Amino acid sequence: MKDVVEIVDVTLRDGIQNEKTFLDLDTKKRMLAAIIDAGATRIEITSFVNPARVPQMADAEALCADLPREGLRHIGLVLNHRGFARALEAGLDEVNYAIVLSDTFSQRNQGMTSAEGVALWHRLAAETRGRVGTNVTLAAAFGCPFEGEVPVARMIEVLEQVMEAAPDELTLADTIGVATPRDIEDRVGAVRARFPDLPIRLHLHNTRNTGLANAWAGYCAGVRSFDASLGGVGGCPFAPRATGNLPTEDLVYMFERSGIATGYDLDRAIAGAKALEVALGHPVPGMLMKAGGFPAPAGI
Amino acid sequence: MKDVVEIVDVTLRDGIQNEKTFLDLDTKKRMLAAIIDAGATRIEITSFVNPARVPQMADAEALCADLPREGLRHIGLVLNHRGFARALEAGLDEVNYAIVLSDTFSQRNQGMTSAEGVALWHRLAAETRGRVGTNVTLAAAFGCPFEGEVPVARMIEVLEQVMEAAPDELTLADTIGVATPRDIEDRVGAVRARFPDLPIRLHLHNTRNTGLANAWAGYCAGVRSFDASLGGVGGCPFAPRATGNLPTEDLVYMFERSGIATGYDLDRAIAGAKALEVALGHPVPGMLMKAGGFPAPAGI
Repeated sequence: MKDVVEIVDVTLRDGIQNEKTFLDLDTKKRMLAAIIDAGATRIEITSFVNPARVPQMADAEALCADLPREGLRHIGLVLNHRGFARALEAGLDEVNYAIVLSDTFSQRNQGMTSAEGVALWHRLAAETRGRVGTNVTLAAAFGCPFEGEVPVARMIEVLEQVMEAAPDELTLADTIGVATPRDIEDRVGAVRARFPDLPIRLHLHNTRNTGLANAWAGYCAGVRSFDASLGGVGGCPFAPRATGNLPTEDLVYMFERSGIATGYDLDRAIAGAKALEVALGHPVPGMLMKAGGFPAPAGI
Repeated sequence: MKDVVEIVDVTLRDGIQNEKTFLDLDTKKRMLAAIIDAGATRIEITSFVNPARVPQMADAEALCADLPREGLRHIGLVLNHRGFARALEAGLDEVNYAIVLSDTFSQRNQGMTSAEGVALWHRLAAETRGRVGTNVTLAAAFGCPFEGEVPVARMIEVLEQVMEAAPDELTLADTIGVATPRDIEDRVGAVRARFPDLPIRLHLHNTRNTGLANAWAGYCAGVRSFDASLGGVGGCPFAPRATGNLPTEDLVYMFERSGIATGYDLDRAIAGAKALEVALGHPVPGMLMKAGGFPAPAGI
């Protein structure tokens, strides 16, 4: 029986949040259709943040008002109580709440310390009352652009506090793309050792060419859920030199050709990435969209 | 005690063989100095091939006539008997002889079938009489651009014949960059099961974003030697849409930050990649040269 992984699409959230080319509502809906057509069933559709700081997310409510829902789960990223309230109001299936593991980055990203972030999580967890699924993302879980190293002990310390109100799922985010496969083994291993029943998702950035290696190391360490974006677009507006997410189609190629089911269709994912590249008007990092699958379809 | 891997530099061979910008002898010597400065001790310095077909390699003898030698091992790639004789004459430390696992590609690459390639290897092995180190590369070991899938059984069948005259080392080459980590596990595992004492090197191309993932999978499967080029330049002239080797500096980052010694200095490797990019006059694929190491040096 084939092993299975889940690829969570973050194209319309992390993927475009830092893009200079503004994608209007119609374009987002068109891209969403391509994302679903490629095979996505769990989608981080937007973030509920200050539109003055992240203009691409200004239409969050409008986008959520008219979502295809059947067979899909939609996630909204939130950074504070106001965003959380907006996500609930918008009727999404899940909220993804981020806590940054370093105070300097946490202040820049969401105007609070990590400890304040944890305290707010406890309040949000109480307020959800089971109405939505919950994910807590530990951001900068492999390193901080301002403070440098983030020790494993720091990650576990914050996680212990988070788990006083356990979310449905934990995401470890390599926000600035510094992780190596050994880091993945170490940190996923540390989480699993402490909380063996907590589902883990990995949010990786391919800033230093280790993105797919880290995804593979995560798979080998037992992770079965991975964030990705069409064409590998993405990057955090508040982290210097942050670059793209894992390209969905590249991840699909790696897993499917390794005999692991993703539920995606590679050719449709490539078509989606190419459509996004046209919409953005500049080259995107994905490699399968340039190289093509293997073996190549007849006649290529 | 730290684990150790070897990174074999192939910048001046595979790295530039398909480059449109011609690198003259002085530029090659300057790049070689940068490669050595970065930490390379084993270097595939050139190939002894038909200069009409691969003009960048036309100065093979001139380059080899004036090589720094102390603490270094220089390798010449050869595809036929004439190239082999030239490599011996040039006084290199090792010859790397390629056998392509599919007949169509083998004919295009070196004008003979795979079986003829094996027969020639037996002749070359007899002629070396221990004068130089020998490596046999099985090219297109993970797939062929013309014939598609190359079964593991085919690889083992050819390897069995090669091993009638055992080389010092075997290289498995993903010439067109189609391998996934599972392929690496399967094929390295098959070789090790059949010939447990045969040292294995991996020659990988990052055409489909799986390059570093494959290197990591190779490491986990017991491989300790990997080909790479500064900036990740490279590609085979006779394989459609073949792209770059693993970028040396990206590989150094992945291994060193995973606690595995490479003998390279990351900053010097990045400096070499940047110098090569200037010499070639176009962007190269390496990512560390854009993102920088981590943690960043003070003041960045």
